[in-house]
Amino acid sequence: MSKMDELMEELRSPELTPPIWFEDGTLRFIDQRKLPFAEEVRVVDNIGQLAEAIREMMIRGSGAIGISGAWGVYLAALNSHGDNATVREAGELLKSTRPTAVNLMKTVDETLEAAVGDGAELVERIEEKVAEILRRQLSFERKLGEHGAALIRDGETIMTHCHSGALAGSGYGGRVFSVIRTAFEQGKDIRVLVSETRPSLQGARITAYEMKKFGIPYNLITDNMSGYCMSQGMIDRIVVGSDRVARNGDLANKVGTYMHALAAREHDVPFYTATSSHTVDFDTPSGEEIEVETRKSSEVTCINGRSIAPEGTEALYPSFDITPHWLLTGIITENGVIEAPFEKNLAALDARART
Amino acid sequence: MSKMDELMEELRSPELTPPIWFEDGTLRFIDQRKLPFAEEVRVVDNIGQLAEAIREMMIRGSGAIGISGAWGVYLAALNSHGDNATVREAGELLKSTRPTAVNLMKTVDETLEAAVGDGAELVERIEEKVAEILRRQLSFERKLGEHGAALIRDGETIMTHCHSGALAGSGYGGRVFSVIRTAFEQGKDIRVLVSETRPSLQGARITAYEMKKFGIPYNLITDNMSGYCMSQGMIDRIVVGSDRVARNGDLANKVGTYMHALAAREHDVPFYTATSSHTVDFDTPSGEEIEVETRKSSEVTCINGRSIAPEGTEALYPSFDITPHWLLTGIITENGVIEAPFEKNLAALDARART
Repeated sequence: MSKMDELMEELRSPELTPPIWFEDGTLRFIDQRKLPFAEEVRVVDNIGQLAEAIREMMIRGSGAIGISGAWGVYLAALNSHGDNATVREAGELLKSTRPTAVNLMKTVDETLEAAVGDGAELVERIEEKVAEILRRQLSFERKLGEHGAALIRDGETIMTHCHSGALAGSGYGGRVFSVIRTAFEQGKDIRVLVSETRPSLQGARITAYEMKKFGIPYNLITDNMSGYCMSQGMIDRIVVGSDRVARNGDLANKVGTYMHALAAREHDVPFYTATSSHTVDFDTPSGEEIEVETRKSSEVTCINGRSIAPEGTEALYPSFDITPHWLLTGIITENGVIEAPFEKNLAALDARART
Repeated sequence: MSKMDELMEELRSPELTPPIWFEDGTLRFIDQRKLPFAEEVRVVDNIGQLAEAIREMMIRGSGAIGISGAWGVYLAALNSHGDNATVREAGELLKSTRPTAVNLMKTVDETLEAAVGDGAELVERIEEKVAEILRRQLSFERKLGEHGAALIRDGETIMTHCHSGALAGSGYGGRVFSVIRTAFEQGKDIRVLVSETRPSLQGARITAYEMKKFGIPYNLITDNMSGYCMSQGMIDRIVVGSDRVARNGDLANKVGTYMHALAAREHDVPFYTATSSHTVDFDTPSGEEIEVETRKSSEVTCINGRSIAPEGTEALYPSFDITPHWLLTGIITENGVIEAPFEKNLAALDARART
């Protein structure tokens, strides 16, 4: 069995839901836009199609698109029989698909660094690098899952917001879902409250899909119900993802996160983010310096292609919000759970990472 | 011109959006389920059709269904040429359509009390009573609007949740919309932020419809965006309706209200409810004693008839939540704005009402 066959054998494990994989000389992935109503597997055999899939968000989630970038460089190497210049061009094309996706840049660059020489040697080096990145990512998710699951007690109901799961990562559980599935597999009797996450409904569509797939008990709520649920003692813990964590622990995540955090403080519900130590941006002092991306009005005013408001209605769409560190109980990372004082304890993490 | 013609002439004023009116021997109303995509006027000429319309929520909002009850008794009186027994039977049928709607009971009972005698005399008495109820309600909404508008300053952005407007009341502005339109008509430069109000989207559908109709500048947001908007100084004041106010000022309103109130306190944004002195329930000591109605899962999992979640997903749907009085800045009523201490000041209102 070749090294690539071994890697694919690993990815076919029933415990994984890989967002993208290699099969019969092609890349295959689940079109996440169609979930949960169709599990449509798309097949691409050239780099242009893959770039299109990333641009159109058929593949989404920072971990998943990073890995897709690495796979894309591998596909270009195979198709060009290891032509170095072609491989580098493919890397640049892939990086251009989502210009603000830091993880995609990093992963493609790391793969290109391995692109030494030409021909079969180059293909082999990239193959090894892709396997290394993928195994490292799976290992990261397992470690993060262990640290997070240690917090969760038998009988708890855990709330999450948006989607931070297997299909957004390498296939094990991404960030939040790694914590939840690890606790569940430890035999803990847990239930998950999934907030639907308007406007794009990632919670209702994709998080609920993964809960169902793994048989984890869950219920859906609208985003505006968490305060009531907490006032009734129906939520024991909240775990959300993060798009970016500032040096002081302030957290940018999908819009709505902040309001859940305010209600959590009011009702003494522990509030965590599950993230990677690489998501902490030590160059950003606090949440105030994080620019919040605004998106199109029509993403709010249309659901499933149908309008929900009078014609001409202009909606606002700040796509994430900032949760200040004083509302956080802890930051779950692959290296352990960080608690207050966040600035000091994150700095220690940074020092470790740099040594 | 008959008295009824005079009343209908009043209702045809361009400043009103009556939820129901009398024309050519029939009752006519806008089917609120179709808004904002169609302004469908339905015509009913018998009490059975009207009862169906209330039951199916074509007409909705406590003020609007109360008035519909009075109109229904009038229609029954006309159709039966003033047969007393038939009129009373019609009243009972109407009351049975929405058994928890206190205002419907009260309004139908008040109309039936006027149903003295038989024949033309009875018809005339009911006609007078309907006119009295309608004018009283319009006057209530204008007074409430004046008191609320006095709070609003030039240049403000006001946020509201759900729908508490003209079509939920007598046609002037219901509760919250009376405040907003009065401020707007006073020439104040205001903007309204409408939270869409999942799951039924009354904000996106009906509140936005009324803003557009009256030319009041507005933007739509999803319910989970208000915290971010307040953190950015984008909201100056919040005014919401209320399903019920307890003796201590605790407030039951459409789910999501509580989370807006928590964020408002965090950012020092004044938070008001606009209500009627009759909505205060002096027999209920606090919000803890208010039972929260839970509704069907499918109302959350389906939007516009299409599912948003994996098959088999069970959603929770507490249809309202409780905002404790300590998060309120004031309670706007037709008799003025009540501030803390709410229990004491509401009791004074009660004493006034009972004298």
